Amino acid sequence: MSTTATAKGTAAHPAYQALIKRIEEANLIRSSAGVLGWDQETMMPSGGVVFRGKQLAILSRLAHEALTAEATGEAIAACESVPELTSDPLSPEAVNIREIRRSYDRATCLPASLVEEEAALSSSAMHIWAEARKSADFAAFKPELAKVVDLMKRKADCYGWAEGGEPWDGLAEDYEPGCTAAEVEAVFTPLRKELQTLLDALMGSSTRPSNAFNEVKVPIERQKAFVREVASSFGFDFERGRLDESTHPFCGGSHCNDVRMTTRFHENNVNDALGSTTHETGHGLYEQGLLEQFIGTPMGDSVSLGIHESQSRMWENQVSRSESFWKWCYPRMKDMLGDCVSSLSFDDVYGGANIVKPDFIRVEADEATYNMHIMIRFELERALMKGDLSVDDLPDAWNAKYREYLGIEVPDDAKGCMQDVHWSMCAMGYFPTYTLGNLYCAQFFEKAMSDMPDLHDQFEQGEFSGLLNWLRTHIHHHGQRYRAAELCEHVTGRPLDSTALVKHLNDKLRPLYGV
Amino acid sequence: MSTTATAKGTAAHPAYQALIKRIEEANLIRSSAGVLGWDQETMMPSGGVVFRGKQLAILSRLAHEALTAEATGEAIAACESVPELTSDPLSPEAVNIREIRRSYDRATCLPASLVEEEAALSSSAMHIWAEARKSADFAAFKPELAKVVDLMKRKADCYGWAEGGEPWDGLAEDYEPGCTAAEVEAVFTPLRKELQTLLDALMGSSTRPSNAFNEVKVPIERQKAFVREVASSFGFDFERGRLDESTHPFCGGSHCNDVRMTTRFHENNVNDALGSTTHETGHGLYEQGLLEQFIGTPMGDSVSLGIHESQSRMWENQVSRSESFWKWCYPRMKDMLGDCVSSLSFDDVYGGANIVKPDFIRVEADEATYNMHIMIRFELERALMKGDLSVDDLPDAWNAKYREYLGIEVPDDAKGCMQDVHWSMCAMGYFPTYTLGNLYCAQFFEKAMSDMPDLHDQFEQGEFSGLLNWLRTHIHHHGQRYRAAELCEHVTGRPLDSTALVKHLNDKLRPLYGV
Repeated sequence: MSTTATAKGTAAHPAYQALIKRIEEANLIRSSAGVLGWDQETMMPSGGVVFRGKQLAILSRLAHEALTAEATGEAIAACESVPELTSDPLSPEAVNIREIRRSYDRATCLPASLVEEEAALSSSAMHIWAEARKSADFAAFKPELAKVVDLMKRKADCYGWAEGGEPWDGLAEDYEPGCTAAEVEAVFTPLRKELQTLLDALMGSSTRPSNAFNEVKVPIERQKAFVREVASSFGFDFERGRLDESTHPFCGGSHCNDVRMTTRFHENNVNDALGSTTHETGHGLYEQGLLEQFIGTPMGDSVSLGIHESQSRMWENQVSRSESFWKWCYPRMKDMLGDCVSSLSFDDVYGGANIVKPDFIRVEADEATYNMHIMIRFELERALMKGDLSVDDLPDAWNAKYREYLGIEVPDDAKGCMQDVHWSMCAMGYFPTYTLGNLYCAQFFEKAMSDMPDLHDQFEQGEFSGLLNWLRTHIHHHGQRYRAAELCEHVTGRPLDSTALVKHLNDKLRPLYGV
Repeated sequence: MSTTATAKGTAAHPAYQALIKRIEEANLIRSSAGVLGWDQETMMPSGGVVFRGKQLAILSRLAHEALTAEATGEAIAACESVPELTSDPLSPEAVNIREIRRSYDRATCLPASLVEEEAALSSSAMHIWAEARKSADFAAFKPELAKVVDLMKRKADCYGWAEGGEPWDGLAEDYEPGCTAAEVEAVFTPLRKELQTLLDALMGSSTRPSNAFNEVKVPIERQKAFVREVASSFGFDFERGRLDESTHPFCGGSHCNDVRMTTRFHENNVNDALGSTTHETGHGLYEQGLLEQFIGTPMGDSVSLGIHESQSRMWENQVSRSESFWKWCYPRMKDMLGDCVSSLSFDDVYGGANIVKPDFIRVEADEATYNMHIMIRFELERALMKGDLSVDDLPDAWNAKYREYLGIEVPDDAKGCMQDVHWSMCAMGYFPTYTLGNLYCAQFFEKAMSDMPDLHDQFEQGEFSGLLNWLRTHIHHHGQRYRAAELCEHVTGRPLDSTALVKHLNDKLRPLYGV
């Protein structure tokens, strides 16, 4: 492979330069929408809501038009016919041409009528879902969900899927290129078995970490300074990004030199602010680690949602919930938060950051049970897409799985199959990227530890650049050179499996629960 | 005239609906750029600079393309041929068609080569100006300025001007539609004479207001709360706008329901923070007062820079530098700013907000001398455009006018003819809008006082909604129904003249200076 990072096309073939120019323009429009989206969640006065929706819609249409223009298709074909551009399949030129072709084909294969139908249905179904959820009224949501499932089946048919695959694969491709339900199942099945064994052991123990850390009250101004300090210590560059507040934390922005992440604060939950911040910092470090010379092209873009999540989970779980991190952070936190936390022992804090508790709500779940929530959603949406499960039977199927996997009785559909917005937004094939992220994360971290056995000693010293530089070199700098599964093999030497995540959870959680 | 505010076209002719749809789309793109421009000055990390320039450039190009598309021209012509759309020239439909025609004709009459030449020259001339100004080196800037003048003459030729007019008129049309140099001169000449008389009297007096208000130190957090309170009291709606900080205060945003204004703070200059805030609040109140139903069309847009400035000066000068305002504000300021201002008397504050001092720098000038700076620039740029003044002779001509009008000797060209960025940006025909704003402002306020003789009593009670509602009804709600000069006649019953401004300045300043 060519490891020389050729600039986006300055010295390249004219056909390639022409293609890149078109793609960069589409990206400039899309990244402008990124700033407007960030502004909407962080800065925009409430009066701006309706018009902002129209601004985002037109920018989205213009970006789509720039990508799907006939001239783009011709430019791609022209590049594909130039052997020197594609002879080395891992060269930046070949990667960009390959991924632009993929995006172009995906964007042009859906009939405009279906795209419009999806936009309209998302809008109405989300509205009806939000209303129906208030009174846990699945019957009111059911007709909309049935329409979503029907539309998703037709959408999957348009996209198609590889030989031996299934409809779900066609949809997942939007979020995790190259990922199939069969591959997900092959990794999830052993993971579930191991997680159940671990959860049984933990929940059966009479030893529990203290919950004191999750009960202290800390003034929000102090929390802000504290989490900003942690993000900065991890290597987030505030000259090339911001940290603000929003109801739902996220990481957005324009490009590697302008990354906008958010977090949230509650006076009685500094642990939540820290978790949200370290999670988004992981996303932010990935974005800042993409190469400037490739801004606006696939070589300067992230691989997939799963790989993105592997980076957020890296800093949230592997780093910020580790004993070594807390050895560095505990005294600093005491300094920065003052009296509010003076009564907390080291064990209160490290243990309190790692409490495991099976519960109904995915977004509130801990590091271990979280994956169970994802598996349940994956199995159910796959069955819906295949036609093996009817929308009528969804609540019962949902509740049965929560009983089986987490040992809990779902009290109503608002806390059950209606808790997440995603399906009402026509996002099917998306949920597994969260657990794939956890799996990739653990397998990457295992490899980083084998390359740098003193990594935890570095964390104890507040030294995080060793890990960050490793991630930069092995993951961030590649952009979309490799698909997720290839990247995993390239970096760790083996395909994705569940062993690293299972070992990580057992090694950390069993001692905390005395089992 | 039809005073019924017909919605933008819901019930209107299909040709009109089609035109409005196109124009609204162009506006959605332009207003998206507005958010990005605001973000650039207030929120963007420094790393984002280069890419932001590219984002703004492409949005600007797309908005221009949407406006100048052949289909837009056809849609305008189609509307113009429908009598019921244009029979009442003051109906929203007729106004929109008229103003869209004007924008379209202006945007399509410049050759692309000239537009590109101007973009390139602005960029290089601004850079060379900034460097040359550092060492007050006019010789280094002169060749660039000569190119600007040459280009502006050619641009004026493309635009053309009305019978009996001159090249300057063709350029001013971009900022003050319908305004001519001859009209400006007719108002400026008597104003200058009266100002000179007033300044001679003030500067000849041994009585001077105390400068103590401009010397107190106030912590910036207290200043922020104070100016926000004032903006809110004036009626700025923070549910439909924001107040942030930037190096150069401005008012931008997207539309009437999302207005972004900024101010600035220095610990030792609370008066500057107040002045910047009340000025931008005036712009902001105008923007918020435009009618929501016309967003994105000329009927929902401001008239001209001069009328916009009349609104900022209204709240900055007529209100916030008045004795009645300070009777309300003085005790409140003492409460909010605390000990820092406890030694200041009412006279210190009211007088300190109204100090007059002839000096070199326009942006630091007071309410009275400011207009002299503008007149000098107007006379010189008009002469440059006519060919009556050569770029070689500009510094001498500049310095002579400062000697004649303000009685001061300009020490060097950095404090002289190179102090402003505007000419290097190819903005000629722009400066007079500032003084036109002051003139319109005074004439509008005089009329408001005659409609509501107790207006100053209202200010003393902290009641500003009387004035705001008057401005809403008489100015804001009209959008671009009237050109500036027509609006002035429509509102005040006579054409613009200098009597109201002269009276205002004499009535306020003479007592403060004991003359």
